Amino acid sequence: MGLIVQKFGGTSVADANRIRHVAEIITDTYKKGNKVIAVLSAQGDTTDDLIDMASRINPRASNREMDMLLSTGEQISVALCAMAIEALGYPVISLTGWQAGVITNTVSRNARIKRVDTERIEEELNRNRIVMVTGFQGINRTGDITTLGRGGSDTSAVALAAAMDAELCQIYTDVDGVYTADPRLVKGAKKLDEVTYSEMLELASLGAQVLHNRSVEMARKYNVNLEVLSSFTGHPGTKVKGVVKRVEKTYISSVAKDKDIARIALIGVPNETGTSFKVFSLLAKNHINVDIILQGIGHEEGKDICFTVASGDLERAAGLLKENQEEIGFVRLETNADVAKVSVVGAGMINNPGVAARMFEALYDAGVNINMISTSEIKISVLVDKKDGDRAVQAIHDKFFGL
Amino acid sequence: MGLIVQKFGGTSVADANRIRHVAEIITDTYKKGNKVIAVLSAQGDTTDDLIDMASRINPRASNREMDMLLSTGEQISVALCAMAIEALGYPVISLTGWQAGVITNTVSRNARIKRVDTERIEEELNRNRIVMVTGFQGINRTGDITTLGRGGSDTSAVALAAAMDAELCQIYTDVDGVYTADPRLVKGAKKLDEVTYSEMLELASLGAQVLHNRSVEMARKYNVNLEVLSSFTGHPGTKVKGVVKRVEKTYISSVAKDKDIARIALIGVPNETGTSFKVFSLLAKNHINVDIILQGIGHEEGKDICFTVASGDLERAAGLLKENQEEIGFVRLETNADVAKVSVVGAGMINNPGVAARMFEALYDAGVNINMISTSEIKISVLVDKKDGDRAVQAIHDKFFGL
Repeated sequence: MGLIVQKFGGTSVADANRIRHVAEIITDTYKKGNKVIAVLSAQGDTTDDLIDMASRINPRASNREMDMLLSTGEQISVALCAMAIEALGYPVISLTGWQAGVITNTVSRNARIKRVDTERIEEELNRNRIVMVTGFQGINRTGDITTLGRGGSDTSAVALAAAMDAELCQIYTDVDGVYTADPRLVKGAKKLDEVTYSEMLELASLGAQVLHNRSVEMARKYNVNLEVLSSFTGHPGTKVKGVVKRVEKTYISSVAKDKDIARIALIGVPNETGTSFKVFSLLAKNHINVDIILQGIGHEEGKDICFTVASGDLERAAGLLKENQEEIGFVRLETNADVAKVSVVGAGMINNPGVAARMFEALYDAGVNINMISTSEIKISVLVDKKDGDRAVQAIHDKFFGL
Repeated sequence: MGLIVQKFGGTSVADANRIRHVAEIITDTYKKGNKVIAVLSAQGDTTDDLIDMASRINPRASNREMDMLLSTGEQISVALCAMAIEALGYPVISLTGWQAGVITNTVSRNARIKRVDTERIEEELNRNRIVMVTGFQGINRTGDITTLGRGGSDTSAVALAAAMDAELCQIYTDVDGVYTADPRLVKGAKKLDEVTYSEMLELASLGAQVLHNRSVEMARKYNVNLEVLSSFTGHPGTKVKGVVKRVEKTYISSVAKDKDIARIALIGVPNETGTSFKVFSLLAKNHINVDIILQGIGHEEGKDICFTVASGDLERAAGLLKENQEEIGFVRLETNADVAKVSVVGAGMINNPGVAARMFEALYDAGVNINMISTSEIKISVLVDKKDGDRAVQAIHDKFFGL
């Protein structure tokens, strides 16, 4: 019994029936004696439709006006869902970002929440109302509507949970939690009861788009208890928190694969100071994210620099590098899009150096060749041939979690 | 060269092409050195679509949440139109009702504007920006979004013109002004250059839905110069103002017909005090508007009371009266839906008593029988058989305006 923030994504409120279903989840929580703040995204494809509409009128519309336009999507969602709750006979009020006191900086379309002035929300909760709040949006100091960019509604929910010191922040989505591996891909994949914030962050960066990193980082900063769960199944989900209890022998929480990745190799880079800087600052300047980087020690004839980029960036990255071949000074550029990245993530591995060895053993047993290796405190990633990707994930999962 | 408020209705902003066209009208006005505030309605059927959506979820949704929902329609319009103006290379900003300082009372779905806090608008105009404002909406003292009900966007435009002391308030619509009679109906109907506020009010009550009465009343109160014109033709429209110059011999501004009208006759009402009160308070209590009322002097056996109601109210009115037959005490009730009301409107007739005689002469010449007559200071209405309606309008129009 306390304050619970519940966030529902666009799929969960896509039509009248789903909105009614969300209204039931919210009122069930309220009936149990909880105070409830529900944060909603825009319905289904609404945001994309609005973007389409805008681009037909002005493909280079200002971000300020885009925010004015896009913020209507969540406003429609909260109003309709409030009506559904009224129909069930419960007291409710919907609030826009500005009404809910979500104050952001002035960066339109990618604003950051600076604080939440909770006065209105508290007032409404004290009147025993369920409070619906538009996700993804706020107001800046000049009184203009701002939107928060990707993952914005998750961030809104976590910010409200932090500001209101909520007991729990539930993120309802179309998957029912975080798994030891992608259940569509790996036999024996199990739902995890709990993961740490750090594990969740690493998983998100591996393409497991359950929660956006911004919201997880904010949850970690303010120590907000998160739960990821499905609005469709009604099953308990996965809790995301600071410290988790886990059966000792496992150490890792999950195995993930990212196949939308490509490798670039620069062969024969001169053995001089500053060449790596030249390569990666060129890519950064052009907003191309680089993931695994591998650089040999080098010898007289020069050194090789290998790194991975998202598949979608491969062509552009290769083009940029070739344009600057003379300045960087490499002899040859090779690209390979037939690769996959396989990673194990787990907060437990910091204190258990055997994890890497176990992972490599699994790959050796399965006959999978490792191209590149990269490690962080709680993650080990290897690059393998794309054809070996699924087999690699299954082998590692079997090794750590049994079949 | 001054401040011009321009209002565009839903048809004028229905799609991308029309929005671009509206952007051109606005920027043409701006280019001539004017400051411009543009007030927009929701696009085409948007408001109706939102109402449909709501009724599928909760047919008895609260007005507060309906306003939260409906107000998104105009927000979409102003954002898109601002983008179209950006594409043309002009400085522009769109504002919602609350951003524009439109303060209303707390009656959701039918709010009245209490005042306009013009600070933000003035600031934006001083930065030489075109200011787009959502019509139809404002904010109440509890910080909730309100909508203004029917004719709301016209009212928003007039309120802004009054608050900002604008030189002119142009109401763009799909007709290009006010005519001496309905041009689809009457040969020789001419567009009027000017009409008075009072004439406009009488014309609106006769079914000429060019401007909503609320906005005309507000324009009269604050002496706002209005112009009704078409966003499609680009022709000058009809000015609505306090005093108009008109060719002396005409006196009237236009002839109108209302066929959605029906007559009720109560025969043999006792010749006592209070019977009229009983009849009309009964109808008023049930929100049935009564138009022309005719009551004979009466004789010993009782008197007859005749009056007209809107066709749509006929059945309900007759039912109510029959339920209360004993209390009211009439002998018989007769109804007639085969009638039409034909009216002449003109501020000039106050000082020219010959207008009625001329109108009746025209009807006599055309062989049209008059059932009932009603007059106000600037209007004369007659009830005729429905089959004679069009002929009556043409005959009167010919008499006053020539063919």
